[in-house]
Amino acid sequence: MAQINENYLKLQAGYLFPEIGRRVREFQKANPGADVIKMGIGDVTLPLTPTVIKAFHEGVDEMSQAETFKGYGPEQGYDFLREAIAKSEYESRGADIKPDEIFISDGSKCDTGNILEIFGKNNIIAVQDPVYPVYVDTSVMAGRTGKYMTNGYYEGLVYLPCIAENGFIPQIPKQRVDVVFLCYPNNPTGTTASKAELKKWVEYAQKNKTVILFDAAYEAYIHDPEIPHSIYEIDGAKEVAIEFRSLSKTAGFTGTRCAYTVIPKNLMATDEAGESKPLYPLWFRRHTTKFNGVSYPVQKAAAAIFTTEGKKEVRSTVDYYMKNAKIIRESLAKLGFQVYGGENAPYVWVNSGRGIKSWDLFDKLLSEANVVGTPGSGFGPSGEGYFRFSSFASHENVISAMERLHRLKW
Amino acid sequence: MAQINENYLKLQAGYLFPEIGRRVREFQKANPGADVIKMGIGDVTLPLTPTVIKAFHEGVDEMSQAETFKGYGPEQGYDFLREAIAKSEYESRGADIKPDEIFISDGSKCDTGNILEIFGKNNIIAVQDPVYPVYVDTSVMAGRTGKYMTNGYYEGLVYLPCIAENGFIPQIPKQRVDVVFLCYPNNPTGTTASKAELKKWVEYAQKNKTVILFDAAYEAYIHDPEIPHSIYEIDGAKEVAIEFRSLSKTAGFTGTRCAYTVIPKNLMATDEAGESKPLYPLWFRRHTTKFNGVSYPVQKAAAAIFTTEGKKEVRSTVDYYMKNAKIIRESLAKLGFQVYGGENAPYVWVNSGRGIKSWDLFDKLLSEANVVGTPGSGFGPSGEGYFRFSSFASHENVISAMERLHRLKW
Repeated sequence: MAQINENYLKLQAGYLFPEIGRRVREFQKANPGADVIKMGIGDVTLPLTPTVIKAFHEGVDEMSQAETFKGYGPEQGYDFLREAIAKSEYESRGADIKPDEIFISDGSKCDTGNILEIFGKNNIIAVQDPVYPVYVDTSVMAGRTGKYMTNGYYEGLVYLPCIAENGFIPQIPKQRVDVVFLCYPNNPTGTTASKAELKKWVEYAQKNKTVILFDAAYEAYIHDPEIPHSIYEIDGAKEVAIEFRSLSKTAGFTGTRCAYTVIPKNLMATDEAGESKPLYPLWFRRHTTKFNGVSYPVQKAAAAIFTTEGKKEVRSTVDYYMKNAKIIRESLAKLGFQVYGGENAPYVWVNSGRGIKSWDLFDKLLSEANVVGTPGSGFGPSGEGYFRFSSFASHENVISAMERLHRLKW
Repeated sequence: MAQINENYLKLQAGYLFPEIGRRVREFQKANPGADVIKMGIGDVTLPLTPTVIKAFHEGVDEMSQAETFKGYGPEQGYDFLREAIAKSEYESRGADIKPDEIFISDGSKCDTGNILEIFGKNNIIAVQDPVYPVYVDTSVMAGRTGKYMTNGYYEGLVYLPCIAENGFIPQIPKQRVDVVFLCYPNNPTGTTASKAELKKWVEYAQKNKTVILFDAAYEAYIHDPEIPHSIYEIDGAKEVAIEFRSLSKTAGFTGTRCAYTVIPKNLMATDEAGESKPLYPLWFRRHTTKFNGVSYPVQKAAAAIFTTEGKKEVRSTVDYYMKNAKIIRESLAKLGFQVYGGENAPYVWVNSGRGIKSWDLFDKLLSEANVVGTPGSGFGPSGEGYFRFSSFASHENVISAMERLHRLKW
């Protein structure tokens, strides 16, 4: 008699973004004429850039001839891509990451969920609150939590509140924590962590043998030269941290699918006997056994991002979205919202200051202004009263959305 | 103090194919002039067909313009692809599978490993022996087995021997089995299961509330009209079986990456309280939370396979490989090998009849004939003494490899 994974029954409602999609679809069905502007899910709108498109086509052409056809590639990704990333993203910043420490994948969402597989089930996991829901939901599915509680938290997970009072940087936990998810530039708050703040975390991890799972999916949005793009810019981080990077927001790959995860070879955890073991061979084994590599033409397209021309184009795309972020920040501030983020991140995190609950604000904006944002409470209890705007829409839509908000009765 | 997933330490040596790759690379390094013919790993060699390439380019072009650009798609795959599959692969065979029961993914290797996540950890898992190593290794990694034993088996897994004596069809197990992996056309033996044989398994599963994980990655190679392509051609299978399909071998997608998994909505398993629960929402949740959909241009390319022209082209590719299989079968039979499979599957499974062990034959063929095959023992203890030849090389290489084998001293 086959039995289900009981942990799934602990999960609350739907995953946040499908739930938003559902409400939007229902609204559109009831109001077919409504011109809905979507600033909810962090999905990009600008097309792939010319250099990327050219390489993508070339990759497809190679698949059309026996001489250049590519069958199974290395599961960890082609060397040409791993080398380009090591050089462009790490070497250039003085971070000593080797190409073979970089695992190409089809998405950071997948990797941040799958990474738990290489850790024992008794690890205590900490997450920021508010938080990208995938870290929490995959922890639940993997049986690393207890039940969902009425306060909006799962038993057994350690939540680190990130609120205006602490500048959205979590305090070092007092209890034992074995694995901690940190995301900077942060989703959803759009805030960043300084080198000094990250240094505190690396030192904590060194002292407690904690592994930091550092999600840097939004690093391309950092403009301030003082803010680190990678946790490996901090001394000692190679011994305590795994880093996730994505091309989704960097280069508009949300529908093209390519990301990478860095596992330094000298990153250790312990086995049941208390002996130190490297995590690298475990992820290597997982990746080669349960994954079969990213589509070859996609890897060709991805490598184009790291060329001189590709970088220029990507920078211009990022600049476009950051102009939107500026418009959103300024416009909402004028309306009296408390505004955070959006300066080195594509997300603007706002608090109406009027005591409106997040989902109520969602419904109000959808029905009265036909504008979709993301309710902060969907990211965790500390997000209640907040709202996330993404800057990935077109200029025109962003301006139009802000005008509509200014016309609303508050 | 972070702890590793101890189950990984139970895994034996490398995953089979990386190990073959390692030996081949070492040989080539030592013998740079050697013209090595690869018939080991089941990787295709013919390019993508013109219809597929055309659609692939069109998909890339759509990504180059804001008006047609695609960001995040539905995690389960685009409707156009799910509908094409439901119609072409199921409706046409009288199997009542709806488009929303089909989950598009980036590979069957991933899906057959990940599927275990939705089952409880106390399920007893059965596998065929010899077996595609991924089912076993992912079961080990997920903690569904005990230790590796000196006889080549893992404690806690139920092995179902598939040998010449039972026509490579496993006997119905006598002990309790909650989940069983069945693969037909079989990898590695190249043998098939009749409707009558599959009916026995469906009846067993109905009686014992066992879930069948049916891997049909090679169904495109079936020529005999009497052999079922899908387990859903058997009455009642929708209540007991999950089916995995891949475009890798069907249409040369090993480096392009697209597959699908069917989870019927009325397939049930039980929770701890013994209550029946559908598995569909669990996989739906897993797929939407831990996966972000297949690359859009790849899905466009995949859909082209199911057009009239696409089907013709794919059939011609399959025919090409099946001619190879015939050459291999006949040639090895002449050498006195006992030959199985290769008639409705791309694999030929052979026994030298000379008492040579599988890895010894591998080393002999590599060093003396520069031909790479797959040692049968790599698929499980019942594969010892056997050897798998794949028919995915070019005609010229297959003929040349067979000539070299005829020149060897046996």
